[in-house]
Amino acid sequence: MKPRLFTPGPTPVPEETLLELAKPVWYHRSAEAKAILGEVAEDLKYVFQTAHPVMVLTSSGTGAMEAAVVNTLAPGEKAILLTAGKWGDRFRGILKAYDTNLVVVEQPFGKAITPEMLEKALAENPDTKVVFATLSETSTGIGHDIAAFGQIVARTDAILVVDGISGLGAMECRMDAWNIDVLLTGSQKAMMLPPGLAYIGVSEKGWKKIDATPVRSYYFDLRKYKKSIAENDTPFTPANTLIKAQRTSLKRIRAEGIENLWARHAKLAQATRAGVQALGLSLFAERPNNALTVIAVPEGIDGSAVLKKLEKQHGFKLADGQDTMKGKIWRLSHMGYTDAFEVLGAIAALELVLAESGYTFEIGAGVAAFQKAYAG
Amino acid sequence: MKPRLFTPGPTPVPEETLLELAKPVWYHRSAEAKAILGEVAEDLKYVFQTAHPVMVLTSSGTGAMEAAVVNTLAPGEKAILLTAGKWGDRFRGILKAYDTNLVVVEQPFGKAITPEMLEKALAENPDTKVVFATLSETSTGIGHDIAAFGQIVARTDAILVVDGISGLGAMECRMDAWNIDVLLTGSQKAMMLPPGLAYIGVSEKGWKKIDATPVRSYYFDLRKYKKSIAENDTPFTPANTLIKAQRTSLKRIRAEGIENLWARHAKLAQATRAGVQALGLSLFAERPNNALTVIAVPEGIDGSAVLKKLEKQHGFKLADGQDTMKGKIWRLSHMGYTDAFEVLGAIAALELVLAESGYTFEIGAGVAAFQKAYAG
Repeated sequence: MKPRLFTPGPTPVPEETLLELAKPVWYHRSAEAKAILGEVAEDLKYVFQTAHPVMVLTSSGTGAMEAAVVNTLAPGEKAILLTAGKWGDRFRGILKAYDTNLVVVEQPFGKAITPEMLEKALAENPDTKVVFATLSETSTGIGHDIAAFGQIVARTDAILVVDGISGLGAMECRMDAWNIDVLLTGSQKAMMLPPGLAYIGVSEKGWKKIDATPVRSYYFDLRKYKKSIAENDTPFTPANTLIKAQRTSLKRIRAEGIENLWARHAKLAQATRAGVQALGLSLFAERPNNALTVIAVPEGIDGSAVLKKLEKQHGFKLADGQDTMKGKIWRLSHMGYTDAFEVLGAIAALELVLAESGYTFEIGAGVAAFQKAYAG
Repeated sequence: MKPRLFTPGPTPVPEETLLELAKPVWYHRSAEAKAILGEVAEDLKYVFQTAHPVMVLTSSGTGAMEAAVVNTLAPGEKAILLTAGKWGDRFRGILKAYDTNLVVVEQPFGKAITPEMLEKALAENPDTKVVFATLSETSTGIGHDIAAFGQIVARTDAILVVDGISGLGAMECRMDAWNIDVLLTGSQKAMMLPPGLAYIGVSEKGWKKIDATPVRSYYFDLRKYKKSIAENDTPFTPANTLIKAQRTSLKRIRAEGIENLWARHAKLAQATRAGVQALGLSLFAERPNNALTVIAVPEGIDGSAVLKKLEKQHGFKLADGQDTMKGKIWRLSHMGYTDAFEVLGAIAALELVLAESGYTFEIGAGVAAFQKAYAG
C-alpha cells in the first residue's frame, strides 16, 4: 500500500527538498550558510508579500505565536483576540500566560469572525494595543477576511497580528497591502518542509510597538532576530539543514509564482468542495478556506472509524477533529505539495469506505463532480 | 576536495541518520510517531543516565536553557551562576531577562569554576534557589566538575541546573548519580543529529521547585512537556523528522554503550592533546574536556588566517574563537560521529598550514604523537 499524507500539517515535502536533507551537515556560521539564509529570507519576503525582513525561528509555529505576543505586549496591556477555533484559542493560552488584559471576540466552531465584530470590539476598547487574528482556522476549515481586518485596525493605534500558519502560501495573503503588522507561519504547511522552523515578519508600525515594549523573553526576543537577519544570520544555532532545504522548496514556490499558487489552491479547494457535496456530505466551515476542506461527519457514521479504515485499507491519512471535535469532522488538506490527482484519489478512497460504512450515495458521484469542477 | 566538519556543533551526522531525513514526512500524532518518540525518550534517559523522563523541545539548545530558567525561578528569586565563558554568559543573558536576583561566580576564559568557589557562594547566599553550571564550556574547552557541584548543591535546598549542550554523550555525566536536577542538551553535538531539537530532564527535587513556580512562558512551560511525554507525545508540532532520525543515531549510541562512548572520547581527546603539544602548541583550557580541544594560537600567527587556509586548502573546518576570543584560539571538535583517523587528518592538515605560516616545528611530530598516544 502507498501511504498518502492529507493532514493539514505536516504536509508532503517535494522529493528534491527531502534529498537536500540527506546531505552532510555544515557549520551554521559559514559564509555558505549565510548566503543560503539570505536567499531564504528574500524568498520568504516574496511569500509574505512584504518589503520588511522575515525572520527565521527554530521552533514550532506556536513558538512564533509566543514571539508575537511577548514582543508586542507589556503586562496588563489590552489585546483583542478574534477566535473561532482551536488555533485562535492557542493565542488565548499564550496571552493569558503573559498577563494580557484580554478582550475575546468569539465565534462557535465552523463560523468566522466578521469585520463588524472587530469594528465593534475596537470601538468599545479604544485602549487596545494589539489585535490577534487567524488566517486559516485549521481546526474548522474557515478562513478570515484579513484584508478587511487590516483596514479596520490600520485606522487605530493598535497593531494587527496574524497567525498565518496553515494559510500562508495556500490562500491570498498580502502582508504589506493588507496592513498586517506581524505575520507568522510554520514550515510544515504550504511552505513544503518538515516541521521545525517558523517565520515571522513585522511592519514598521509593529517594530515601533515592539521597541516600546519591555523584553520578557530571551529566545523569542525579536530584536535579536532583526539584528541578526540584517547580516543573514540567526541569534542562536538554527536548524540549518531545514533552512537549506527550505531554500529548495521556496525555489519551487517562486517558480510557480505566488498568484498561481493561490489560484491553484483555490481551484483545488473548489473541486474538493464540489466532490464532497456531490456525495451528499456538507462542509463544516461557513466560510471555507483554500488550504483544507473540512467535512461534517454525517449522522449515524462513526467519523473516527472511517478515518482509520481510510488509512488502513487505502493508505490515505486525513485528520480527525481535535479535542471536542473528534469524530465530528474530517479534515482533508490540499495545501503545498499536493495536486489534484492525489485529492481525486482521496475522494475515491473516501467513497469506498463510505459505501462500506452503510452511508447511502451514488458511487463515483464524488470523483465525477471533482473532475468536472476541476476541468472548470 | 573533501569537506570535513570539526566545529563543536554542528558535528558530522552518520550516513544512515541522514538518509532517514530524506524519507517522506508523516503525521506527528500517529501511532507510529508516538512509538518513535517513545523509543527516543527511552534512549535519551540512557544517555542522560536518569530514571526521569527526558523531554523533547523543538528549539536550539538556548531554548532549553531558557526553559530551565523560566520554569525554576520566580521573579526576584536568587540564583547562583557559575560562568567561565560564552555559554555560561548565555545563561546570564537569560537570567537577566527573567528578573533574577543574580549572584555571579566567574572565572576568566580558559579557567574552570572550582567546587570551593561554589561552596563559598552557597554559604554566603543561603537563600539561593537555583545554581546554573556548564558541563563543557565550548568557548574555551574547559570541563566542570559537575559531580562535585552536585554533591555540594544536594546538601542545600537549591537545585542544580546543568547545560550539557556540548558535553553530554562525549564526557561522563550521570544525571541521577551526580544529583543534577535539570540537565539539558542540544541535538547537534554528541547526539549525532543536525540542529533543531533540544532535550531536558528534571529530577524529583527539580519538579518540586518547578511546580511551586508561577508559569511565565507558554512554549517553554515544562509542565506541558511532562504531561505529553508520559503519552509519548509533545504539546506542539515537533520537528518530527528530526525525532525519527534521532532514533537512528541513538541506536548507534546504545550499540556502542555510553561508557564506551565516554572512553572513546577520552582516548581521542588525550591523543589530540598529545599531538597538539608535540607541535609546541599549548592547550587553552586549564581543565580540558573530552568533547573538543582548544588550542592557543601561538604568538605571531594570524589565527583566523590559519583556519581559513585549513578550510580552503584542505577542506577541514575548525571553529575560531567567539567574540573577544576571535583569532586567539582554534577549536577542534572530536565529539559524536568523528573518529581517530579523521582527527589524525586534521592534525596533519594543521601541520601543513602551520609550516606555511612560518611557525617552527618538526613536520610529522603532531601526527606521530597523536598516533603514539592513541595506540596507548
